[in-house]
This record gives sequence, C-alpha cells and structure tokens, in this order.
Amino acid sequence: MDPTTEEWVIMAKERGKRPSDFVHQRDNPRLPTLSASCPFCPGNEQMTPPATLSYFDQSRQQWQVRAFANRFPALSREGTATRREEEGFFLAMDGLGVHEVIVETPVHNTSLALMREKEVERVLRAYHERHNALSRLPFVRSVITFRNHGRSAGTSLEHPHSQIIATSVVPRHVRRRYEVAIRYYDETGRCLYSDLLDHELRIGKRLIMETGRFAVFHPFASHRPFETWIMPKVRQAYFGNASAEDLRNLAHVLRMTLLKLYRALNNPDFNYVIDTIPLEDQNKRYYLWHLRLIPRLTEVAGFEIGSGIYINTAIPEETAQFMRELKIT
Amino acid sequence: MDPTTEEWVIMAKERGKRPSDFVHQRDNPRLPTLSASCPFCPGNEQMTPPATLSYFDQSRQQWQVRAFANRFPALSREGTATRREEEGFFLAMDGLGVHEVIVETPVHNTSLALMREKEVERVLRAYHERHNALSRLPFVRSVITFRNHGRSAGTSLEHPHSQIIATSVVPRHVRRRYEVAIRYYDETGRCLYSDLLDHELRIGKRLIMETGRFAVFHPFASHRPFETWIMPKVRQAYFGNASAEDLRNLAHVLRMTLLKLYRALNNPDFNYVIDTIPLEDQNKRYYLWHLRLIPRLTEVAGFEIGSGIYINTAIPEETAQFMRELKIT
Repeated sequence: MDPTTEEWVIMAKERGKRPSDFVHQRDNPRLPTLSASCPFCPGNEQMTPPATLSYFDQSRQQWQVRAFANRFPALSREGTATRREEEGFFLAMDGLGVHEVIVETPVHNTSLALMREKEVERVLRAYHERHNALSRLPFVRSVITFRNHGRSAGTSLEHPHSQIIATSVVPRHVRRRYEVAIRYYDETGRCLYSDLLDHELRIGKRLIMETGRFAVFHPFASHRPFETWIMPKVRQAYFGNASAEDLRNLAHVLRMTLLKLYRALNNPDFNYVIDTIPLEDQNKRYYLWHLRLIPRLTEVAGFEIGSGIYINTAIPEETAQFMRELKIT
Repeated sequence: MDPTTEEWVIMAKERGKRPSDFVHQRDNPRLPTLSASCPFCPGNEQMTPPATLSYFDQSRQQWQVRAFANRFPALSREGTATRREEEGFFLAMDGLGVHEVIVETPVHNTSLALMREKEVERVLRAYHERHNALSRLPFVRSVITFRNHGRSAGTSLEHPHSQIIATSVVPRHVRRRYEVAIRYYDETGRCLYSDLLDHELRIGKRLIMETGRFAVFHPFASHRPFETWIMPKVRQAYFGNASAEDLRNLAHVLRMTLLKLYRALNNPDFNYVIDTIPLEDQNKRYYLWHLRLIPRLTEVAGFEIGSGIYINTAIPEETAQFMRELKIT
C-alpha cells in the first residue's frame, strides 16, 4: 500500500520483468541546435507572449532560461473563482488560473539530462522564482510545476521546456494526500514524509543516491516501473522555501537521475512534477515537498482506469539496485 | 466538476479542437483471420490454461467465446487477505484474487465494432456469467471487467479479448465513488447516478443514443475527449443483476457506440470498464452500474499526474453532437 495515498499497488512479480527489459526501443532523432519554426528558439521571441522571467547571459548576449504565458493556456487570469450551478445540476466555475511555459535552454536539441549542472540549476531557480511569484497571486490556491518529456508523456514540442500551472482550486487529489498526512501527524505527532524518507535511508535497498541535502529512491509502492522520488532532507513543506544551496544540490541529484535514466533506458519519455504544500500552509509540519518522476515505460490500461490500482511489472528493489549500480562517467 | 468523483475537470476551450481533429492517424494493419502463433486462436487452446467458460456452436463445431485464467496474472488464488507489516513501516498483503481473459471470438482479425450484434451479446453474456461466478468467491471484494483495445490502451495481443480481475480488497478509488454517492443519497434521498441519467436524458445535448433500456452520453465533466458512458435506465446497482434482455439491449448500444467510434475516428485505441457495486451491496439504492469508455486520443501528462485534474481539449457537447449525427448504414 502506498502510505501517502492509501492506494494498493499490485507488484506483478509473475510477469518477471527485469530492469533491463524496460529499455526504450527507439532511434533518437537528430535535431538541429536551432529550428527556424520553433517558437521557443532564440530569434523567435515574438512568437511567444512577453517574458515573465528571463535569465540573460551578458557574455553570450543571450537569454539562457525564459518564461512566458502559454499561448494556449489551460487556465487564464480572466474570470472569478465563484462557483455556479450549471444546467441546474452541475457545479462549474471559470477557468481562473495561470499557465506558463519555462524554456530551459536556447539550444533546441538538448535535454536536461545532457545539460551541465549549472544549467540545470538555472532551470530550477526559474521554477522556484515563478512558483513563488504565482503562489502570491491572491486567487491562487495550488501551483503545479511539471515537465513532460517525449510524445507519450504528452508533449508535442521538442525544445526543452517545463510548465507551471497555478489553479484557483485545491485539487481533490492533492487534498486527499494532505488528509492522509494530517491523520498520520495527529496519530503519531510526526511527519509521514519525513518518516518515509528516514525509513528509505535506513533500509537502503530502494535508494539510488544520497547527498547532504537530498535522497533519491524508488518508492516501496511504486505505481509504475522506475517511478522515482527526490526528497529533501531538510524539513520543508513548501517548495518556495528551498534555499539557493538546496536548489544547487537538487540540480546535482536531478541531473544525475535524468542522466542515469537516459543512459540506462535509452532516453525514455517521462513526466515529473514538484509536489508541494501551498504557500498559505508553508509552516505546516505534516508535509515535505518532493519531486516525483514517472518514466512512461508501460501504458495505463482498463484495470487502472476502473480500480485506481496500478499493476507494476517491475520490482522497485530491483530497479533501484540497477540504477544505483549504474556508473556515470 | 464531476459530480461522481468531485474532481474538477478543465475544459480547454482556448485550444479550440473540433471533434474531427481527433481522427486517429494510422494505417490499420492487415491481419490474418487465423494466426498460428496466437494463443487465443482456435487450435491453440493448449497454449492457455483450461477454459472456465466456453460457448460452443454445434453447427460450426467451434467455440465462439472462451474464458480462462490469465497465464501472467496480476493476482492469483494463492495466499490470504491478511494484511501484514513490511519492513516495520509499510502495509502489505498477498496478491490474492483472480485474473481471467475472455476471448471474444475465434476470428483473429476482427473487433467488437465489426462483429454482429448477436456476437457482441454473447461476449456480454460471458462477462455477466464470469462476473457473477467470481463475485461469489468468498475472498472477492471487487470485480473489474475491462477491455483494452490497441497498443496505447495497454494491450499487446491483437486477438479480440477482454479481461476480468477480481480483487480481495475494495480499491480506494472505488470506495471514494461510493462515499460521494452515499452522501448524495443521504442528503437528497435519491440516487446520484439515476439523477445524472435523468438529467442527461432531459437536457439531451450530450446524448448520443437512447433505447428503452439504455442511454449513451458524453458526460458533462468528461475527463478526456470522447469519454462515453453507457447507463441502464433500470435501477440496478450490481452488473450481475442485468437480465438477458438488458444484455441484448446493451449489445445493441455498445456495438453502435464502438462502430461509430471506429468509423468517425478511424479505429482509435480505447479502454472500457464496467463500473458496478460488489455483489454484497447489490440491494443498495445509491448506485447504478454503468460502462465507461475512454478512447485514447490524448496523453495524460505531468499536470494530470500532479493534480489529478484532467485537461480536456474537446467539448463534450460538440463531440456528442458529432457522434449523434453520425449515420451508420
């Protein structure tokens, strides 16, 4: 059982897949470093809305990271958070929120896994800055920072980018995680996520990497093969409170994690999301922000849709060992 | 908001996709009617475990539908439902349950959408018979009947088949649907699903088809483009209580729905699942079993993983009109 959601996960050991069975079967396309038609490439800035963030490199005379409103936003700043009845039966509201894109590099054909640590750190600083800025908007209740890599992970644009969506509601799904964590806190006086982290550090067999500030592991109840959590050892509920030193250290472990995945599984599609308490709850002691990474190695099928129970065909202890032992040179 | 889960759904009207934008881009492969290497084809019965159900046609001297245990089961009959503590921290239990395959036809290269109504009815009778049989096992708490069509929907075998998984737990996801329905029942004295059905029939604009016994519609808070619900007008909580006449009528609307999808969107991948209360709650008045069909036209991405909120790029009123007006000759 996943202690954070109280959902059962089925570990399908019968299917007996080894970690190396998940290598992505594909030829990685050769892309240009600059694409004339790409709205995220340097020189095409007029194809996007004005920047909300731009980290400029004086020596290169070039922005390195750039954020702006999504041109086809899922949510927009227009409207109100007032709920209304629709058709006399349903609850509805305006799609009030913010949807931004964070372009991670001017280079069209690279990837976070292949970027230098300093460059990854700059991307994380942009996440942090925009996360904090959007969290402070009066109508914002939840901010989701995420990255989709590859077509099966839901992206159509090749140029490396992340997204950030600020909603004017607390998603039910997020609320339920809090409820589980609060109940644990009330019953034990401790933080579920801190206890989970301490347990993984002590047990060690699902651990991939550990630094002074972060741990990387495949959770006990991984929903899908190679699901990876990156958790801070500092006890922070709100991502916006991460320090510059935290972000520098996170850049190190995130880049290593992505590079290991890239090498071991041949550049698999993946999603990751930064899971954090909202700003207004920043002082709560029952939560720990963390980064959840889900490689898209298997498809979600009818049973998962019907039951909410995931069938995982990989054993986390085995995939963690495989990743832990992989040497990056 | 989806009234059955209380999850918000974002209708991304800005992205302005029309129903016809979702046509599946693929060449449908030409497959043989019989494949020597297919374990589900006639003549290869020894490649599967013994049949738990077989509908034999005397005149053709051939089974028409055949069920058996999955050779690579997600769950098995071994073990107990006793929960245990693992590593002194997690909750775990044996993978106790049943996992069966239902082969829908002896023909390798057909599809439910292309089969005759009588043949579809036979498949539904097999669902019903196995659903009832598995529901009566003493350790079974929940039975999920589902179909995966196409690679992106999670199936690797071409031969038309469905699956049925009986679990020894009530999935949390399913439990939450009940909780919402029970609260509605307590507050109104009425069944949420019946009220929803009556509303869709009265409003009509998301309705695709209506017969004496069933209604087919795209729900108000569709999570994904062309999500389709088939609901019985008879007030039945438990699928196993459907009558022969119900199944005959369901075969008609299910085949029409699948054929419309096949024609309109060029044989898209899809999942469907039969959502029902368990046998032990068959007399409860707060639920209505139904079939939920999810075409796999878009990918679930980082935002959905992080927030549980789906971004739907199609408008249910438009897709329903498109499907309603599609004439099948």
